[in-house]
Amino acid sequence: MKALDPLFKPRSIILVGASHTGIKLGGVVLKNLLKLRPGGVRVFPVNPKFRRLMGVRSYGTVGEIEDKADLAIIIRPAPEVPGILEQLKGRAGCAIVVSAGFAEAGRMDLQKTVQKTAREGGIRLVGPNCMGVHNNANGLDTFILPAGRLKRPRPGGVAVVTQSGAVLSLIFEAFSRPQSTVGSSITAHYGNAADIDESDIFEYLEDDGKTKAVICYIESVRDGRRFIKRARALARRKPLLILKAGKGAAGQAAAFSHTGRLAGSYEVFRAVLSQFGLLEAADFEDLADGAKALSLQKPVKGNRVFILTNGGGAGVLASDECAGQGFHEAKIPQQKIARFKRIFPPFYGPSNPFDLTAQVRDEDYLTVLEELKGDYDGFVIIALSAVRGITEALGGMLADFKKRTGKPMVFHTGRDAVGQRLSQTMEAAGVPAFDSPERAVRALRKLLIK
Amino acid sequence: MKALDPLFKPRSIILVGASHTGIKLGGVVLKNLLKLRPGGVRVFPVNPKFRRLMGVRSYGTVGEIEDKADLAIIIRPAPEVPGILEQLKGRAGCAIVVSAGFAEAGRMDLQKTVQKTAREGGIRLVGPNCMGVHNNANGLDTFILPAGRLKRPRPGGVAVVTQSGAVLSLIFEAFSRPQSTVGSSITAHYGNAADIDESDIFEYLEDDGKTKAVICYIESVRDGRRFIKRARALARRKPLLILKAGKGAAGQAAAFSHTGRLAGSYEVFRAVLSQFGLLEAADFEDLADGAKALSLQKPVKGNRVFILTNGGGAGVLASDECAGQGFHEAKIPQQKIARFKRIFPPFYGPSNPFDLTAQVRDEDYLTVLEELKGDYDGFVIIALSAVRGITEALGGMLADFKKRTGKPMVFHTGRDAVGQRLSQTMEAAGVPAFDSPERAVRALRKLLIK
Repeated sequence: MKALDPLFKPRSIILVGASHTGIKLGGVVLKNLLKLRPGGVRVFPVNPKFRRLMGVRSYGTVGEIEDKADLAIIIRPAPEVPGILEQLKGRAGCAIVVSAGFAEAGRMDLQKTVQKTAREGGIRLVGPNCMGVHNNANGLDTFILPAGRLKRPRPGGVAVVTQSGAVLSLIFEAFSRPQSTVGSSITAHYGNAADIDESDIFEYLEDDGKTKAVICYIESVRDGRRFIKRARALARRKPLLILKAGKGAAGQAAAFSHTGRLAGSYEVFRAVLSQFGLLEAADFEDLADGAKALSLQKPVKGNRVFILTNGGGAGVLASDECAGQGFHEAKIPQQKIARFKRIFPPFYGPSNPFDLTAQVRDEDYLTVLEELKGDYDGFVIIALSAVRGITEALGGMLADFKKRTGKPMVFHTGRDAVGQRLSQTMEAAGVPAFDSPERAVRALRKLLIK
Repeated sequence: MKALDPLFKPRSIILVGASHTGIKLGGVVLKNLLKLRPGGVRVFPVNPKFRRLMGVRSYGTVGEIEDKADLAIIIRPAPEVPGILEQLKGRAGCAIVVSAGFAEAGRMDLQKTVQKTAREGGIRLVGPNCMGVHNNANGLDTFILPAGRLKRPRPGGVAVVTQSGAVLSLIFEAFSRPQSTVGSSITAHYGNAADIDESDIFEYLEDDGKTKAVICYIESVRDGRRFIKRARALARRKPLLILKAGKGAAGQAAAFSHTGRLAGSYEVFRAVLSQFGLLEAADFEDLADGAKALSLQKPVKGNRVFILTNGGGAGVLASDECAGQGFHEAKIPQQKIARFKRIFPPFYGPSNPFDLTAQVRDEDYLTVLEELKGDYDGFVIIALSAVRGITEALGGMLADFKKRTGKPMVFHTGRDAVGQRLSQTMEAAGVPAFDSPERAVRALRKLLIK
């Protein structure tokens, strides 16, 4: 058993602040926890006013519970939390403190008390000021927001580690959009990080079988050395994409008032990421796009990128972004240019980007890719579906090429009917599709390691 | 009458290369042109094989047409174009050469011939290698792509000037998405720009009553001095947002092979834009987002930005982007902080960003905004709809605030049911809504002039 199994795979859960109705936070969580019972998870709701809640026995106080539990979840006003932790001593291995009103509200004293009480009681702590854990592998869901407000993503390979609940909600929303193909494994929101932080969770995720890639939103790091150690160890096993917020002075101040931790110099942080081969997202959209790319493809070594397009301007935009991302937009070998000139109409542009023009036919894409598959590490495929020569058949051709070669590829097309079906086919084949040429290139950066 | 009225408001049009079927390019265009006839526009199709096309008289050659026309559209193979222009001498004031196969295909000679023939014939030329004009004010539509492939935007205030047909298709697609509120006035795709280029079109748009803002995709400029003169003159009348592509060496090479014009130094171009107060878009998405913002609000002077959020992390992301965009994230005046501390719960964070937390109620937004409306030039409003306190009523409150104050505002919310309705209400009130905090901030940059 691993140290944080009680947190991510609890067999028994105490819910302090349980409620009888889904209109209250403690009711939302209770309802979700009770779904775990057919799987053999025991749930102990605590609420002094009820003896039964949602059909199960409820306890007036923590002290009444006769058994030990793996996990306790606390949804009570901040001043009550130290006392509750006191009672949980010897009764729970791990506690999620959902309540706000600690360091982030200027009450560092209260947070220190909570920290100390938990430590002395041998309780590992998540929070305070957090939503806790969502685990698609076993259905654990401690989030206080009902699904009607915050959709949960389908099961998949992306773990989400976030210091911010707001960013968690943005991520879940992005993952849950109708056309999304991204699913999540474990999601952890650790808020003020009085005890358990990103480093602990990174360590746990190293061996989590469902997790294929990890994305992380981080504002501040308490122990930089430990962070680097754990992030590197994780990144050796699976890709780790980090969005560091609180970059400038104003952002750092905002981050401090948000979780009460100091953000530190972004320049230093960035240098560290780059030195140790960790992936960085430029902004929220880049994080979500990167998650999609990493959920579909494993990063590989390489930097030579080829852009294949049927629209000159879209190719130029992709090319600009390739330069911005530090890709090597290597030229096509001379003898292959000569061959392209023989087989293609004179107005096709056999260079990089390769412009198949509005006269393109589906099979032209495959002709070019087959010829150049050994010359490049990654491919940006742009198929503007506004032109007649682009049909749904292109999806099958590209998907087949992807399957045969395994080459990192990203895709951009329109959102019309043909484009939408093409995007679906591509993502089913492991090629992420994006709404602009530049977003596709930025996502490819997550899949190719310099 | 203005010089380019024959191009944008023709009363009579010759279509060389007309076809009897919408499956052919010349048929797509003919079909669109015939829709203009009830408005009194005369259409002369030219096709040697037919005497009638789509129910109207057709002409075997240009020479058979007895009248003069404002505009000729040529959809015939490149080598035929000089001869056709020869015949159009004295018969058309303006010609759109749709055909490709000129400078972009290495045939600079053919382009020069076309250029010379048109000049000697007194014909103003659009193209070659272009789609021509779409004008929502009068229904003119010379685009060879049928609406099934390329949706046309609804009528609105944004003019689109683009050197690239691919980017035109991206823009039209973005404008035509189900939730889009952006409409277009005049759209011009001028391709290789052998004669008419962005400068000519800028000049025309200065006085175009329907056009409230102009967005422009540009790879290269032939006459830099003239470009600056015309861009400045236009920008004095209405906002002009430019996406310059072909930034790096590879992108410049791609741009050259695309339209046969040299892109020039991006650094110089950028310095010029900034010096003369022209707006720049960072990439395609920024161009589309900026178009939305400018279609809803007029830019004003100012740089002090206030971020109001109900999610700490989303506020930090917005704050980081504000720093990146050079905004002044001014602090809240001290006495107002004191007031906020009196009226709000202790865990609210009365700073900039102002975090109303997950405990927010709709009316809190208004309380803060009313207090601070005089202290800031622009507002970033983030309302994460995952929390209970955010309801559709917030839309009405914010819309009312916007109407009363006229302050530049941008909005970010989720895409769930509440979020989507909020976004609709906000955009109906002139406040653009975006899918991420950073995109909202970048769009606000287009609305606030330093």
